[in-house]
Amino acid sequence: MGYLTPRRLLVFYFMALFMSLIYVIYSFASWCPNSFKEMNMRFPNDGDVNELQIRDKMIYEKNELLKLLQSRFQKVETNLRRLYPEVASEILEKDSNPNDLPYIYAITPTYTRPVQKAELIRLSQTFLHVRNFHWIVVEDSDRKTKLVENLLEHSGLEFTHLNVKTPDAWKLAPKDPNWLKPRGVLQRNLGLTWIRENLKKGANKGVLYFADDDNTYDLQIFEEMRGTKKVSVWPVGLVGKLRYESPIVVNGKVTGWHTYWMPERDFALDMAGFAINIELLFDKPLVQFEYEVKRGYQETTLLRGFVTKEELEPLADNCRKVLVWHTRTEKADLRNEEKLKKYGKPPSDLTIEV
Amino acid sequence: MGYLTPRRLLVFYFMALFMSLIYVIYSFASWCPNSFKEMNMRFPNDGDVNELQIRDKMIYEKNELLKLLQSRFQKVETNLRRLYPEVASEILEKDSNPNDLPYIYAITPTYTRPVQKAELIRLSQTFLHVRNFHWIVVEDSDRKTKLVENLLEHSGLEFTHLNVKTPDAWKLAPKDPNWLKPRGVLQRNLGLTWIRENLKKGANKGVLYFADDDNTYDLQIFEEMRGTKKVSVWPVGLVGKLRYESPIVVNGKVTGWHTYWMPERDFALDMAGFAINIELLFDKPLVQFEYEVKRGYQETTLLRGFVTKEELEPLADNCRKVLVWHTRTEKADLRNEEKLKKYGKPPSDLTIEV
Repeated sequence: MGYLTPRRLLVFYFMALFMSLIYVIYSFASWCPNSFKEMNMRFPNDGDVNELQIRDKMIYEKNELLKLLQSRFQKVETNLRRLYPEVASEILEKDSNPNDLPYIYAITPTYTRPVQKAELIRLSQTFLHVRNFHWIVVEDSDRKTKLVENLLEHSGLEFTHLNVKTPDAWKLAPKDPNWLKPRGVLQRNLGLTWIRENLKKGANKGVLYFADDDNTYDLQIFEEMRGTKKVSVWPVGLVGKLRYESPIVVNGKVTGWHTYWMPERDFALDMAGFAINIELLFDKPLVQFEYEVKRGYQETTLLRGFVTKEELEPLADNCRKVLVWHTRTEKADLRNEEKLKKYGKPPSDLTIEV
Repeated sequence: MGYLTPRRLLVFYFMALFMSLIYVIYSFASWCPNSFKEMNMRFPNDGDVNELQIRDKMIYEKNELLKLLQSRFQKVETNLRRLYPEVASEILEKDSNPNDLPYIYAITPTYTRPVQKAELIRLSQTFLHVRNFHWIVVEDSDRKTKLVENLLEHSGLEFTHLNVKTPDAWKLAPKDPNWLKPRGVLQRNLGLTWIRENLKKGANKGVLYFADDDNTYDLQIFEEMRGTKKVSVWPVGLVGKLRYESPIVVNGKVTGWHTYWMPERDFALDMAGFAINIELLFDKPLVQFEYEVKRGYQETTLLRGFVTKEELEPLADNCRKVLVWHTRTEKADLRNEEKLKKYGKPPSDLTIEV
């Protein structure tokens, strides 16, 4: 052992780790019994051993083990949160310093309709992948519905459930086009109020995001928006009758807007295209959405209370990537329920929730 | 433990898998000193030190990650022992093989359209929550697209990427109603062929499910379908212009179909409403979808090759729960791209993928 220098010790230490990893891999499962035998046979013949190859193989195997561990652990977490939400966080106690990671407070206005449950289910499946995430769901209704209440309770997500009804004068008639009246104004404002009243500047770090229940979100956008200093912006796909609408970015600054419709607006972007550091909500406690603004000016009304265009922080590779899509789900057509009744056949059982 | 339901037992079962990994990692610790000695003898320092150092650094980093994961497992173990001592040791001692869990092979036909990426992204987020899941994505195209290829590679899912083009004679014209021609026939058949050619009866245990890319899936349905012996069935929401279509179940047996349209079909259910044990694919190697069948008879054509109605296994609480929804995403309207061009303004950048 006279030639056991510190450097060699280090090398041997790493080799010991390799060997043990192999042991871990082979004793954990029976997936590679043959290669275990192979290794056993090769090691005694010093001359045959190519150390680089061995390391490469070990790196590969470590990667495989890591992938396995990560995906399984993620799935256990998900299952636990979904099936057993009451105790999940107690059992899992996430990262060591979860408070270091800014929260995402997502405000989702929603209303009763046939596709509502499906929309909220798949949205919750997206959000389940996001750490330090708080879902503020605001129903457009006189009272909270059982459907949304149950769904949230079994979602495995951290959430706040609110409700406020849009006055009839501001409701869209069934045949009105979407853009005729502003939607979700009171609901989003109630979300803003909840944040201002229940969180504290300094103590709670995070960003606010308006996440409608029919959009599609790449998980990457959540990790990007987490670092928002004031207001961050990015492209939104399939909106404004374009492939995407986007801030135009020159030298890292937003200089204008790629949109067909009223690019002269101060903030010509979609509700899904920005996030706000919640500090601004406390610094400007009166800024909110308004009913009495020109069509298409909701985002501008809100954002000019907080920032100037020059201060915007472009994300998503300087607005060169689409990570959010303004998908819309078709209204469900349920006409055959009436036809079944007309022909004396039983319609769908109303005690079965859809 | 009056509240130790089968579902919770399932959760604990999966935790047991993880705990056994921790055990192995621990047991390696005591084995370590011996291997040091062994290493010392077996690996004289004759390699290229720089190359070795680079790899050693990678291995070091991977070990750090493994340590992190290990410590998180430890936390889960501790919490489990503290909160549920009655079941903890049983769970921690159990040594199970993840291969015992049948796989889900989901066949998803897909085609190029503006909302395709968004649909596949959110679908992949759903599937990421499902263990032992293999996604067979079949493009309706002459060749595999870069978009789908990249998406699958970054999805984190186990997948197979295939393609086959529907002959023009069988394609829907843009204004045709959806039901005019059967869609996805060749694509689903290619998926069936892949399973028959790449999996082996006995060696591969699992179920086949046709998961279209615009539907919505409650995660619970995947865990339920995993146990399918021959063919399992369940309700599908928002289909057939009804709140839901469903098998009618009496005393645990399917006796008929709740549907407005042709309830006299042998199997009057939607593609999203059944799963098939892959053993049947090997036992009946010729059964597949056909073009030349009456409208609405695709499911019936396939299923009567495998089972009788009496053999069907009703899931989802005897078909009293809707866990799958036949949601449809609106076609994207991109008309303003042309208008921008008409007015001499730049349209959306085609190098930005949507």
